[in-house]
Amino acid sequence: MSIEKVDVIVTSPGRNFVTLKITTSDGIVGWGDGTLNGRELAVVAYLRDHVGPTLIGRNEDNIEDTWQYLYRGPYWRRGPVTMASIAAVDMALWDIKAKKAGVPLYQLLGGASRSGLRAYVHASGATYEDLLDVIRGYMAQGITAVRVQTGIPGLGQVYGVASSKPGEKYNYEPALRSADGTAATRPAEETWDSRAYLNYMPGVFKRLREDLGTEIRLLHDGHHRLTPIEAARLARELEPCDLFWLEDPTPAEDQTALRLVRRASTTPLATGEVFNSVFDYQTLITERLIDYVRSSVTHAGGVTGLKRILDFAGIYGIKSGIHGPTDVSPIGMAAGLHIDMAIHNFGIQEYMPHSEETLKVFHTSYTFKNGFLHPGDTPGLGVELDEELAAAYPYTAAYLPVNRLTDGTMYDW
Amino acid sequence: MSIEKVDVIVTSPGRNFVTLKITTSDGIVGWGDGTLNGRELAVVAYLRDHVGPTLIGRNEDNIEDTWQYLYRGPYWRRGPVTMASIAAVDMALWDIKAKKAGVPLYQLLGGASRSGLRAYVHASGATYEDLLDVIRGYMAQGITAVRVQTGIPGLGQVYGVASSKPGEKYNYEPALRSADGTAATRPAEETWDSRAYLNYMPGVFKRLREDLGTEIRLLHDGHHRLTPIEAARLARELEPCDLFWLEDPTPAEDQTALRLVRRASTTPLATGEVFNSVFDYQTLITERLIDYVRSSVTHAGGVTGLKRILDFAGIYGIKSGIHGPTDVSPIGMAAGLHIDMAIHNFGIQEYMPHSEETLKVFHTSYTFKNGFLHPGDTPGLGVELDEELAAAYPYTAAYLPVNRLTDGTMYDW
Amino acid sequence: MSIEKVDVIVTSPGRNFVTLKITTSDGIVGWGDGTLNGRELAVVAYLRDHVGPTLIGRNEDNIEDTWQYLYRGPYWRRGPVTMASIAAVDMALWDIKAKKAGVPLYQLLGGASRSGLRAYVHASGATYEDLLDVIRGYMAQGITAVRVQTGIPGLGQVYGVASSKPGEKYNYEPALRSADGTAATRPAEETWDSRAYLNYMPGVFKRLREDLGTEIRLLHDGHHRLTPIEAARLARELEPCDLFWLEDPTPAEDQTALRLVRRASTTPLATGEVFNSVFDYQTLITERLIDYVRSSVTHAGGVTGLKRILDFAGIYGIKSGIHGPTDVSPIGMAAGLHIDMAIHNFGIQEYMPHSEETLKVFHTSYTFKNGFLHPGDTPGLGVELDEELAAAYPYTAAYLPVNRLTDGTMYDW
Amino acid sequence: MSIEKVDVIVTSPGRNFVTLKITTSDGIVGWGDGTLNGRELAVVAYLRDHVGPTLIGRNEDNIEDTWQYLYRGPYWRRGPVTMASIAAVDMALWDIKAKKAGVPLYQLLGGASRSGLRAYVHASGATYEDLLDVIRGYMAQGITAVRVQTGIPGLGQVYGVASSKPGEKYNYEPALRSADGTAATRPAEETWDSRAYLNYMPGVFKRLREDLGTEIRLLHDGHHRLTPIEAARLARELEPCDLFWLEDPTPAEDQTALRLVRRASTTPLATGEVFNSVFDYQTLITERLIDYVRSSVTHAGGVTGLKRILDFAGIYGIKSGIHGPTDVSPIGMAAGLHIDMAIHNFGIQEYMPHSEETLKVFHTSYTFKNGFLHPGDTPGLGVELDEELAAAYPYTAAYLPVNRLTDGTMYDW
Repeated sequence: MSIEKVDVIVTSPGRNFVTLKITTSDGIVGWGDGTLNGRELAVVAYLRDHVGPTLIGRNEDNIEDTWQYLYRGPYWRRGPVTMASIAAVDMALWDIKAKKAGVPLYQLLGGASRSGLRAYVHASGATYEDLLDVIRGYMAQGITAVRVQTGIPGLGQVYGVASSKPGEKYNYEPALRSADGTAATRPAEETWDSRAYLNYMPGVFKRLREDLGTEIRLLHDGHHRLTPIEAARLARELEPCDLFWLEDPTPAEDQTALRLVRRASTTPLATGEVFNSVFDYQTLITERLIDYVRSSVTHAGGVTGLKRILDFAGIYGIKSGIHGPTDVSPIGMAAGLHIDMAIHNFGIQEYMPHSEETLKVFHTSYTFKNGFLHPGDTPGLGVELDEELAAAYPYTAAYLPVNRLTDGTMYDW
Repeated sequence: MSIEKVDVIVTSPGRNFVTLKITTSDGIVGWGDGTLNGRELAVVAYLRDHVGPTLIGRNEDNIEDTWQYLYRGPYWRRGPVTMASIAAVDMALWDIKAKKAGVPLYQLLGGASRSGLRAYVHASGATYEDLLDVIRGYMAQGITAVRVQTGIPGLGQVYGVASSKPGEKYNYEPALRSADGTAATRPAEETWDSRAYLNYMPGVFKRLREDLGTEIRLLHDGHHRLTPIEAARLARELEPCDLFWLEDPTPAEDQTALRLVRRASTTPLATGEVFNSVFDYQTLITERLIDYVRSSVTHAGGVTGLKRILDFAGIYGIKSGIHGPTDVSPIGMAAGLHIDMAIHNFGIQEYMPHSEETLKVFHTSYTFKNGFLHPGDTPGLGVELDEELAAAYPYTAAYLPVNRLTDGTMYDW
Repeated sequence: MSIEKVDVIVTSPGRNFVTLKITTSDGIVGWGDGTLNGRELAVVAYLRDHVGPTLIGRNEDNIEDTWQYLYRGPYWRRGPVTMASIAAVDMALWDIKAKKAGVPLYQLLGGASRSGLRAYVHASGATYEDLLDVIRGYMAQGITAVRVQTGIPGLGQVYGVASSKPGEKYNYEPALRSADGTAATRPAEETWDSRAYLNYMPGVFKRLREDLGTEIRLLHDGHHRLTPIEAARLARELEPCDLFWLEDPTPAEDQTALRLVRRASTTPLATGEVFNSVFDYQTLITERLIDYVRSSVTHAGGVTGLKRILDFAGIYGIKSGIHGPTDVSPIGMAAGLHIDMAIHNFGIQEYMPHSEETLKVFHTSYTFKNGFLHPGDTPGLGVELDEELAAAYPYTAAYLPVNRLTDGTMYDW
Repeated sequence: MSIEKVDVIVTSPGRNFVTLKITTSDGIVGWGDGTLNGRELAVVAYLRDHVGPTLIGRNEDNIEDTWQYLYRGPYWRRGPVTMASIAAVDMALWDIKAKKAGVPLYQLLGGASRSGLRAYVHASGATYEDLLDVIRGYMAQGITAVRVQTGIPGLGQVYGVASSKPGEKYNYEPALRSADGTAATRPAEETWDSRAYLNYMPGVFKRLREDLGTEIRLLHDGHHRLTPIEAARLARELEPCDLFWLEDPTPAEDQTALRLVRRASTTPLATGEVFNSVFDYQTLITERLIDYVRSSVTHAGGVTGLKRILDFAGIYGIKSGIHGPTDVSPIGMAAGLHIDMAIHNFGIQEYMPHSEETLKVFHTSYTFKNGFLHPGDTPGLGVELDEELAAAYPYTAAYLPVNRLTDGTMYDW
């Protein structure tokens, strides 16, 4: 048996997803996610024009061999486009392998190490009171971990802050189409001011701890926007607020920046959602500069790629915190949950539910109950694409915003 | 004035090249190279579908701002596809800026720091005698530096070994179309055996030194194929042969691998042709693990990106050795020569002439004489694309080979 | 074309400035600043007697080559006299190159990366109330960043404390002529007491934060006067006051002294106004011991020298904070503003306006409005010297003060 | 009593020397050397215009206080011009103090620690045979240590190679006047090729050891011309030749460059003749990257400055190897010999006799016999300037050569 057909499907039920479909000679279908927010068509070309033809006729069972073939083969390694493409292939092959074995994927990765996966969800609010209401609503549902982002006085739209009201679903989608829903031609430009943020944010967490007590896990995402010393200050100032983690305080590609943050504070640090290779983590892990690995399966080279990173991290007591917003498709989400179930060093799983539109196109088996996710026990990844419905949502260009400082300097978003 | 038009042109005069054409509102045209061997169409999609539309209306003068816009803006950073795309834009904007100033680009980078650029060329041979003849032929032309790759007894086709005979042009082109010149569907598979290589190669260099004396600079490319300890052994064993450099002895993304090689030997080390970010070099440079920076302008984020890396390297006494085979177009080649002219820490420039077909499509101003290159004094980069002729050579899929060990293990090519 | 004439001009419109004038064979004039407060005539001799004659006939385009010629050529490297001399030549050559291209210098350095340059100004006061009034006056003008120095109870004249009253211009000029305005024969001697300073200063900043809120950026200059452990204590004690930076807490030439300060606090650190080489920064940058680079263009080897330092710093998330008091001439000031405009890692620019007398001699194009500087768009640096008027202000010896501890120990001023 | 008069005297008996004469109110005269080869007049201006007037009336006894006054007082620290000026003052004050005590200076530094100072002399030769003859001539005189520099086949004039024949005095003077003995207008340009040097030099030392045996100490000066890896190779290759030291293999200001050299070899390393501050040595000494400190008294801030460096070095088992060519005057030479006599960690002293013309102008007390120097027992430094004769030799501009690589790149001389 071998790979007979490789299809790349782009669908945009509210947002764009890149899906790889691999069909074997005996008709088994595997699904992989190659979504790269705002750069989708580069992955499409990479998969359709360069990877796809080379897969035809290959033995679908040889996943490690195929991973190495795609990683080492093209000579030019790493990077988001390359590794999202490899991830899509890798996920699809693991989907096939598990379907052939008739088991959910986590069984092939070592079986279940826990009964469910503690998830954290996203909270934001236009006012502090709104924010508090949102979090209390989550807590009432049994949710035990919440990532908190807020608006900053004096700034306009800020990363991670949804327009949702308490009681409504958190529906933050930063990758924007144009105002009338058609293709965007360029990113929106937001304004950033680290000083305003640093002066405001610690107070929010201090109030939250006062109002919510010590039980609830609070997380926060710095989104790469601080210099090393600013991040060190924030981490130190937040120390009494007992953050579960402070994520991406500095631009992640500068691995040694976290040395300074580490020296200043014991606030746990998480990073890696923009990483795509174990080498992006080598210094961070061996110098113990982080506590959680934040890559998604989709952006870190698939099940094979991310599992390798997490196994390495585990040796250093570093846990998983897999990326989980809607910029990975339900396929990528499911792949992460299977890894979570099987590894020993599971930490937490990010969870931001896909839109109803999305979930009509992607049929999922995973569940979320009382604050815990479970990948389900359908053989394979447990997600199937409705190709007919997918075709009804053609690709529509959308871009993540960019940031400028108040003086016009291009900045990290 | 602003950017009015962005076109992506793929032409294949013997091999595939991706060219970006930026036209300003007052009609000035800048050219950039975004060629990524074997993954060309991913760069095309990245530029055409995601980058191009966002450039229209921008001020073409603000090169650093545009670089940061493209680097930080899309959130997903680094990697060959992304950085080749940024490089294409950056080169085109520097081409425009220098044309507006009416000077060759090197003038804007600080002016000429030397009269010409020592180049090294490629030599290979089916037999040792052929190889010797080829090198002696080069020496007779005044060439002072030669990269030597040879076949390995017991192995078939090996990286860098051309089928050319002494007296013929070295025409090694590893990115292969199918046998009849039409699009390839997959890479060729070659066989590799590190043990055979390690047992054979040092003897070749010992003989070469005996036959050629000490004058000629000899270079060698390990092409990422050795483990750290094998590389350490090779570097030590080649020490008496006075290599100008040993290139990429280990897989480059594992920066600290060279610590072991460094400890074993004083053979100069060069790496980086697969790198695309200053962060790929941070450990290598600050720990002084390499002696030459091998990135191309095309793969390292353009003039802005590569100049930043080379200036950093210069502080540590590390020199340039810019990548120069035909997998960058004449535009990318010219951009490298302009940097070479201007920086203080120039080391050497790789030179592998483009085919005559290619040079009919790309009209160049740079020259090669007596072993030295010069970028020429045409304003801008000094390369113009003949668009009409380019259109006559449509994209034809071609792939770099992959390697397998003799037991079938997928390996680094 | 080549350098035809090199003139060194000393003028003293209120204070001494050393200006280099380079004239090319086709009559283009470039201006450079070589002012070294209190050691002006050593630079004059260095330029007039040793550098000038060697420049005649050189190609003015080859700036990097000339920089290296002056840096490596005399064998004896670095130091304030040498590097201010090199800076003067380098600035003049960049002025010429930009004039030839018909663009403001920042265009050659990569174009504009922002619309304006946030500046910080100097505040001091005889009493706390005076100080508060001064700062509020600045804030009313839209100024967003203020360096605060104050008198210390029990000490007399202290660095950075002007005699100005609220409403008056800050006119602190530490380099003193004799009382009657004629040449000084020796420095004034001030008294210093680190204990009095450490016991007093934190209280000032605490009161300022209470009275002014969190919005205003407050900076402070330790002026090299603390031991490492004293500096560590001060930095930690000031942490709640959210300093934008603490400058030069310890004698700067002892790079590793800041390790102790860094370990104690997340107060941002700035240093380098007395530095003149990238090697003065190598440990500070790679160990991330500072957050802002404080060199001036005039004292750090010119545009070429300072840009190299700032590019290096940028890789480590370290920003610029270019020195800007009146001990650099308007030419040196303008050169800094052009760099500020172009680099990505701009932080802040120090701004202390030159006297009206000075600005009659130096015609500038840069502007200061609403707390932001801009270099202007005149081709070149945008500063021209009125030579005739300059001649009316002959050199008049003036010296920076020296410090003694209360027991008479000679101390850092 | 106090300083009454400060005179700066430039004399050029064959080469330029800058001499400081301090006269106390009771008529004692102290002499200091401020010679800075090729930049003499900058030191003259620094001393005459800026330092001199501030010394008048100071207590000549307070040497440490004066040193700190000149080091910390002008705010701008370090560098060759500044530190040669401080050195001149410091030497003169020590000369006065010892004269007042009626003892040779070494007595005030702790007395004699040895009976004489092993010196090394300079040898060069047009041919190997000439070189051998020269060294054998030295050995016949009881000299036990010889620095060997040779011409390099294919290069022209090379650093350290005199035109002297065997039997003649080594008279290498690199700072050149114009051909007719009048003032030079610019440096001579020599050509350098590290490759030719590295291919040739080890063979010379191998032959020398074969021809001369193991007894004679052989030294060699790399004169800052190698990259770190080239230096590592040379140091390793010379290991069997048992060099007493390899001096300045890399540009000295990059202190950490020697880490690479150190890892490759146990060849002892010496550096520092271009250094002027203890901070230039801080990394080198604490990381034990060198074995000998090479500064001169003249360029490292005088007796006070150099003694401080050597005391620091002694803690790490690092010895003295004070610079001693004719680019310091006999006054600076004598100051070094007094330090040599007194410190415990004396290593060796460089000795290149001044010309007869020079020694008519400077009357010295030090002696050289059987390969050993001694400072003599005249009170003070033991050198007096014949001012009348000095005036007969006015300053005549002369410059050290510069180097260019064969491709025209400006290089380290």
